[in-house]
Amino acid sequence: MRALFSAATALLLASSASSAPPSDVGYDIVEGLTTEVGQRLAGTEAEARARTWAVARLKALGFANVRVEPFDMPVWVRGGETAEIVAPFPQKLVLAALGNSGATPEAGITAEIVGFPGLDALKAAPDAEVRGKIVFVSHRMTATQDGSSYGYFGAARRTGPSIASSKGAAAILIRSIGTDHHRVPHTGVQDWTNGAKPIPAAALSVPDAEQLERIIARGKPVRLHLTLTPRMTGIHPSGNVIAEVPGRDSKAGVVLIGGHLDSWDLGTGAIDDAAGLAITTAAAKRILDGPKPKRTIRLVWFGAEEEGGFGGKAYAKAHGTEKHALTAEADFGADRVWQFRTHFADAKSPLLTELTSALGDMGVGPGSGAAHGGTDIGPMVERGTPVIDLEQDGTRYFDIHHTADDTLDKIDRAQLDQAIDAWTTMLRVVVDTPDPLSALPAQPQED
Amino acid sequence: MRALFSAATALLLASSASSAPPSDVGYDIVEGLTTEVGQRLAGTEAEARARTWAVARLKALGFANVRVEPFDMPVWVRGGETAEIVAPFPQKLVLAALGNSGATPEAGITAEIVGFPGLDALKAAPDAEVRGKIVFVSHRMTATQDGSSYGYFGAARRTGPSIASSKGAAAILIRSIGTDHHRVPHTGVQDWTNGAKPIPAAALSVPDAEQLERIIARGKPVRLHLTLTPRMTGIHPSGNVIAEVPGRDSKAGVVLIGGHLDSWDLGTGAIDDAAGLAITTAAAKRILDGPKPKRTIRLVWFGAEEEGGFGGKAYAKAHGTEKHALTAEADFGADRVWQFRTHFADAKSPLLTELTSALGDMGVGPGSGAAHGGTDIGPMVERGTPVIDLEQDGTRYFDIHHTADDTLDKIDRAQLDQAIDAWTTMLRVVVDTPDPLSALPAQPQED
Repeated sequence: MRALFSAATALLLASSASSAPPSDVGYDIVEGLTTEVGQRLAGTEAEARARTWAVARLKALGFANVRVEPFDMPVWVRGGETAEIVAPFPQKLVLAALGNSGATPEAGITAEIVGFPGLDALKAAPDAEVRGKIVFVSHRMTATQDGSSYGYFGAARRTGPSIASSKGAAAILIRSIGTDHHRVPHTGVQDWTNGAKPIPAAALSVPDAEQLERIIARGKPVRLHLTLTPRMTGIHPSGNVIAEVPGRDSKAGVVLIGGHLDSWDLGTGAIDDAAGLAITTAAAKRILDGPKPKRTIRLVWFGAEEEGGFGGKAYAKAHGTEKHALTAEADFGADRVWQFRTHFADAKSPLLTELTSALGDMGVGPGSGAAHGGTDIGPMVERGTPVIDLEQDGTRYFDIHHTADDTLDKIDRAQLDQAIDAWTTMLRVVVDTPDPLSALPAQPQED
Repeated sequence: MRALFSAATALLLASSASSAPPSDVGYDIVEGLTTEVGQRLAGTEAEARARTWAVARLKALGFANVRVEPFDMPVWVRGGETAEIVAPFPQKLVLAALGNSGATPEAGITAEIVGFPGLDALKAAPDAEVRGKIVFVSHRMTATQDGSSYGYFGAARRTGPSIASSKGAAAILIRSIGTDHHRVPHTGVQDWTNGAKPIPAAALSVPDAEQLERIIARGKPVRLHLTLTPRMTGIHPSGNVIAEVPGRDSKAGVVLIGGHLDSWDLGTGAIDDAAGLAITTAAAKRILDGPKPKRTIRLVWFGAEEEGGFGGKAYAKAHGTEKHALTAEADFGADRVWQFRTHFADAKSPLLTELTSALGDMGVGPGSGAAHGGTDIGPMVERGTPVIDLEQDGTRYFDIHHTADDTLDKIDRAQLDQAIDAWTTMLRVVVDTPDPLSALPAQPQED
């Protein structure tokens, strides 16, 4: 196995030496997509323009079998959104509707605020305390390198609205699921579960949430005027954009990689997830520019991830029965890869030894626990596809995630280049390894 | 003079030991004013509520002669503001109207963009290149500790609109005069000079300005739809809130200090300028709580600074003939005092030796050049009042200045406390010095 590693290193150096700086493919994707398309909300004409852009770019880069695989989805779009404390201290607050939020009448609603420090307090509250009021849940969140805090604290966004609705709340405001202190609220999807009726649901920016906390703490009843006019526009087309690096051995199974093409509508989706497209595409391009690999790399720019993983589900529906050797996705920003995790049928797989050595030489060590992929490749992981997570540093990810601040200037090119190098190193190992990469038992998706 | 210094130090320690933590007076002003009033645009009902709040707080703190001195001013208020690139890459941009901006029709205007890297390029452009277009000036600005970059780079905001108007532009957009990379545009005042007709004038956030630069650089004509509907609402009352620490010697001249009560409308005016009120008031409160000083301290929370220094002019008109021993203002955020400057008639004044020793012991040394005060005390400096600048660190000031991000969470309490300590040290020296502090020759205001 050391021979393969050495060969891979040599190829990497050769590829770097014989072409333009390898980082340009990646950075140019982030720069181009965020500049020439900008936001690309799932199922909208902006996402359609992004698909056109994607096909042109992937063809220009020389990938094979570039095509769009369309699917349909229900589409939600943002409307007007304003909030103003009426009493005791009149002032405007900055907020953003959450995905699938219900709407107020055009003229808005005025109601008293009932505040909770976290989701558990909301759950425990008697319905009578909540009914007819605007619920405010101010769940704080801390930054973590591995992003693990998103799971726990994100529940305020994912399930808070349904809980508030089921208790008869007029609307719900949450503290943004974010770790910054800017007046840029963090949107994100939530679904109405267990028959909950849609109500207006929005995130206050962190400074606004802290302001509302202080005002509530003064002890006087707080009344708020809220206008949110988002709407469902019906069923519209989205699609996955697919490109390939053809392999020599069609029976060796596909290596499925990618990120998502759609973005939230507030920023230009630079870190979420033009960066993931950039990283996976730039790494695949280096394989494309070298000797033909054993396995085919299938690169997918998934559509409609943010609104509920529609692209990942559509991919699995269309391709789930094909042989997939391995899968990995990049959907955690543009910062450096700091560790990796795997989930293979054979924990003593020679591939694992090889990967550990190759990535370890870059300073990327094995993490504890199993890889689980993300929303887009999740359906394929559930079907038993072996998976690798190249984990990127999430320390500043939730400062920016799902906000208007997700723009090109947040990309740190040195870190982006490191992530591309790590992905290239990983791909060079997995596309040519003779390891058969047995399928795993089907498993529930963890994330 | 060393005896006085030692006495001052002893008093400071005694005062600190005998009362609540001295920093609370300051922080509580920033916290209270930003929470219970929030934004307080000059001449509006919000600024009137702020005056009511100010009088109550200053009386509660025990200051003497607390009163409002009203004046009238023309009032400008923000309306709707949207910008959308129509071609070649449709997308929304984030912007904020500049003070005194003209308005578009309700339905907005659509015009071609003509971009300039700085103000000199706009000045040099033939009128025909600008006429009927939306001018874009993308003057970059770097952060400086002393804030000196604001003078040069701020010209794009202060004079760009009038230049664009005089050349027949349909509107002007500037890159925010700011040093951050958030989607929070920096507003600020500008005046229509030399007969320039008001046109719509707004600042793009820095990421939006960089986005527009990139789009222009693609080489295709860029068309933008712009809606800005601010308006002048007529002449309305504003006012200065004044409080005093009475001195023993009414002939020794008043020590005039303060900051400004009004704020821009986008944030809650925490660093600009609740912090200045906090610093000057907390320092004056320490004098109030000690032995009666020789000189009276007159603390002014000036009204309507942002829109053109109306409060400072009104003060000078009302009090300009009274004897003022010295003046100083705090209007540069909440961060630490790193150096000081003076402008005295006698450059060898014993007071200067004393100040240098007392502030030097805190790590605050003398800077080069003369003090010049700021907008509020400027009219008194012009009349020859000796002036001290306690210069606060401006490295991060223009990240936040005039944006929605000017909120309480930006206050670093340790730095705020240091600034209060520096002001207290300065006041202890100047309120009791026997130095007669001769008036300066009348001088033009530098800032």
